[in-house]
Amino acid sequence: MTLTIKPIIYLLISTLPLIPSITSAEALSRAVIIEKNKQQAIPRPEQDKVAMNELALKLKSTGKKPNILWLVVDDLGFGDIGGPWGGGAHIGAATPNIDQLAENGLALTSVYSQPTCTPTRSAMMTGRLPIRTGLIRPILAGDKVTTNPWADEMSIGKALSSIGYYTVLTGKWHTGEDKGMRPVDVGFDEFQGYYASQKELTQQFDERRYPDLVLDKEKLERFKKIGGKIDMYHAQKGKGENVIIPTTSIEQFAEADHILADFTMNKIKELAKQDKPFFISHNFMRVHADNHQSKEFKGASASKYPYKDNVVEVDALVGRIIKTLQDSGIEENTFVFFTSDNGPQRDSWPDSGFTPFRGGKASAWEGGVRVPGIAYWKGVINPRESAELFDMMDLFNTSLTLAGYNKTLPTDKFFDGIDQTSFLITDDGRSKREHIYIWAGEDFMAMRMREYKIHFKVTNEQSEFMGIDYSVKQNVGLSPWLFNLYIDPKEEMPVGHKLNPWLASMGVEAKKHAATFKIFPPKNIGLSQKM
Amino acid sequence: MTLTIKPIIYLLISTLPLIPSITSAEALSRAVIIEKNKQQAIPRPEQDKVAMNELALKLKSTGKKPNILWLVVDDLGFGDIGGPWGGGAHIGAATPNIDQLAENGLALTSVYSQPTCTPTRSAMMTGRLPIRTGLIRPILAGDKVTTNPWADEMSIGKALSSIGYYTVLTGKWHTGEDKGMRPVDVGFDEFQGYYASQKELTQQFDERRYPDLVLDKEKLERFKKIGGKIDMYHAQKGKGENVIIPTTSIEQFAEADHILADFTMNKIKELAKQDKPFFISHNFMRVHADNHQSKEFKGASASKYPYKDNVVEVDALVGRIIKTLQDSGIEENTFVFFTSDNGPQRDSWPDSGFTPFRGGKASAWEGGVRVPGIAYWKGVINPRESAELFDMMDLFNTSLTLAGYNKTLPTDKFFDGIDQTSFLITDDGRSKREHIYIWAGEDFMAMRMREYKIHFKVTNEQSEFMGIDYSVKQNVGLSPWLFNLYIDPKEEMPVGHKLNPWLASMGVEAKKHAATFKIFPPKNIGLSQKM
Repeated sequence: MTLTIKPIIYLLISTLPLIPSITSAEALSRAVIIEKNKQQAIPRPEQDKVAMNELALKLKSTGKKPNILWLVVDDLGFGDIGGPWGGGAHIGAATPNIDQLAENGLALTSVYSQPTCTPTRSAMMTGRLPIRTGLIRPILAGDKVTTNPWADEMSIGKALSSIGYYTVLTGKWHTGEDKGMRPVDVGFDEFQGYYASQKELTQQFDERRYPDLVLDKEKLERFKKIGGKIDMYHAQKGKGENVIIPTTSIEQFAEADHILADFTMNKIKELAKQDKPFFISHNFMRVHADNHQSKEFKGASASKYPYKDNVVEVDALVGRIIKTLQDSGIEENTFVFFTSDNGPQRDSWPDSGFTPFRGGKASAWEGGVRVPGIAYWKGVINPRESAELFDMMDLFNTSLTLAGYNKTLPTDKFFDGIDQTSFLITDDGRSKREHIYIWAGEDFMAMRMREYKIHFKVTNEQSEFMGIDYSVKQNVGLSPWLFNLYIDPKEEMPVGHKLNPWLASMGVEAKKHAATFKIFPPKNIGLSQKM
Repeated sequence: MTLTIKPIIYLLISTLPLIPSITSAEALSRAVIIEKNKQQAIPRPEQDKVAMNELALKLKSTGKKPNILWLVVDDLGFGDIGGPWGGGAHIGAATPNIDQLAENGLALTSVYSQPTCTPTRSAMMTGRLPIRTGLIRPILAGDKVTTNPWADEMSIGKALSSIGYYTVLTGKWHTGEDKGMRPVDVGFDEFQGYYASQKELTQQFDERRYPDLVLDKEKLERFKKIGGKIDMYHAQKGKGENVIIPTTSIEQFAEADHILADFTMNKIKELAKQDKPFFISHNFMRVHADNHQSKEFKGASASKYPYKDNVVEVDALVGRIIKTLQDSGIEENTFVFFTSDNGPQRDSWPDSGFTPFRGGKASAWEGGVRVPGIAYWKGVINPRESAELFDMMDLFNTSLTLAGYNKTLPTDKFFDGIDQTSFLITDDGRSKREHIYIWAGEDFMAMRMREYKIHFKVTNEQSEFMGIDYSVKQNVGLSPWLFNLYIDPKEEMPVGHKLNPWLASMGVEAKKHAATFKIFPPKNIGLSQKM
């Protein structure tokens, strides 16, 4: 595979004729480049000062750096939960615990992920776009890479461990199963969970859904040979890894999220007593297809569908984890971020999630990349809502700042995340992010700036409910498609030629983004989009 | 026009072969028929008892019946506002006042209107379906009816006036401009507002949008001859009516909602001091197309689009009206219901509203008939959310009960509303409604029962953004289309033949509904669907 930097070529050749050169100003952009290897951001110096003061005071009063807890659900749709995202009870699965977290925290309605799992997870762990790290698409069972992408990447686990945090990853990993690519290998102190995603783990036991695999012994044997690690592993720095729970049936695996939540809760209790601050990235296996219900939650939702029951289980577990923080007396010294790794995977319909937007998982439409987000820190984050832009990669930089990471980030790498600490923790804080760049695989698909979104390429599903596995990427017509997400959140009707200077301005910004790849070339790890 | 009762014929002929006869039980239905001229309902005797006790205690402690205030926005989309409906700031128009009302009241996420304005407004005022009263579609400029539908109908204004309430209608009327059909004629004590809807009032001044009308003097003269009353009227029982503000320009009309809100607020202040309880139905002219901004709110939304600025204006006015209740010391003795009359009218795009659902105004899809609803009564209604069914016609019966109306409703008429007092005012109250019947014009289109919705006919837009003026109604295929709104809120994929007994059960329920028209024939007022 030769990785060509398509966006540059595309933008130069295809868009340029339509875009007048803008020399004196970038019109729409309020962002400023501070360092050439950092994403440009909107300067908010006063707000930053207030935030830094607040963190310093907090550190002084507690004598301990804040703990950091990420709660990441798999494939949860923007519209699946209650609160300002518009789901919950009326679609058959009430989420009272998540709703309450949102009510008592900062509810974010414009958080962007990558279109699929591995890209999002690697991006939030490195603060870097998948096209830069090479992890451009989900790693599936049997997949091999030619280069270990983690060899020269700094994961959040590694970074925080290096400044005295105890770093833990629980649950789904899915950013490399091979040696050298596992959580402890990339710098986490401890791991308990699965290397692959939910569907990979249950399909070889699911004779109703995969009879051609499960009921054909010969095929099953061959499948197992190349299939991934399906068991629950535990690993600790310097102590190796062990299978602690083998996956032997669907029923047994259906209890996984319980066990993982128990692990995280015990870890919280244990670490709360120690001097070291902790970082825990808790990654639910749910609600990725195929969803099977645990004993406790079978039929727990009003809908009774497995997906919905699983939403209810995740909600309950979120509630239990937050309660553990409270019971351990560290709620006021723990920053929590709740989110999903991408839009709903609609091709498992009817057992799937909901987004009010166009498209779903794997697409560059809002349905693929717009996810819920809640920043919660009792006593520090002022309960409110914000529709300002937040990229999940910002969690990397923000977490470093919260942890007081004061080393210089490597200058030979470009960092796409922005430190959004002051957005999240100051009262009425504003976002520092001006751009969201939406990539799918090797393609620079779209860009959001303020309420505008421009598509250079679009994902079109070939069947109403087969987004991820049956879609095409198409170039748009003569000019990029420009949508106004305030008046057209479903991306149904482009603005057209009404705002040409915006189109020009956004074209310039897209080119600036593309130009970063000239200085910092993308990494090719042999994970081709064409299998 | 001959009004045939299509649904009966349709159901008997077209659906019957597929529906096995259900004799012993109706399977899915928990509802019970109590009186043959009343909509069947789910019995909740314990809950009713609690509610009645609460009302009696309240009456005893205040010595005064509760005031009732309806706040009805025109064409506001389900997804336009914040709170559990999923809109607000992230689509460019924050609605903090409405959000707060929802937070402090009962936020209803499954409220159903009729697909268009006149039908909804007449239905909520009579507790009867448009097909029964004859008001089956919007009355447009120049429209004439052969029979006054109000001659034998009891409006909520008339009913409450008869038991000592002072009844007021402010703002949009739009349920008949002719003599005998105006608010005071149908029993309201006082009216201030417009007889027609917003677009009817501004088009003859809007040369940018309607040049073929406005810039052609001869056409304009002819238009004015048949056009409706475009001025703001004031009328009082026994005192006749007067034009109090003539409509002379768009700019002047753009201030209408201010003036109307001031009228309602002054009325509240005045009536708060009197012994009589009041009923006020406040009907915003906004956010019906064409939206023009008032001076105060031009550019007030983040989006800056007229529609969005108008949403922000409505929100601000809702806040001011609620504050007036507070300042007048009657907030704890006033039942408030906030809602919209139908889904968003998307054909004024980009200047239009948002629904996460399929379709918009005029369609039988959720986008046409699913509207936000907030029941607010400080100290009485427990703040919470509910996704249980509520039909806007229920407001008629519920308001009668709240007001202590103890006369018998006419037995020669069928009432489709259900008294939902106990649903709204008891803590964790449950809905008594099992069915939502969706009619469009003379067609029985669809029915919702629990989370299931069955379509007998569907509305298909012929152009992506021309719902109301460019759509067709089509019969569905061999069998009615059955959707599960929990797993498929956008109505994209029917359940198919998976739940045939449900299909059968719903068929039986639809037939029961159709049968009410045999005993209580629909009224033909000459308002044909074919103009």
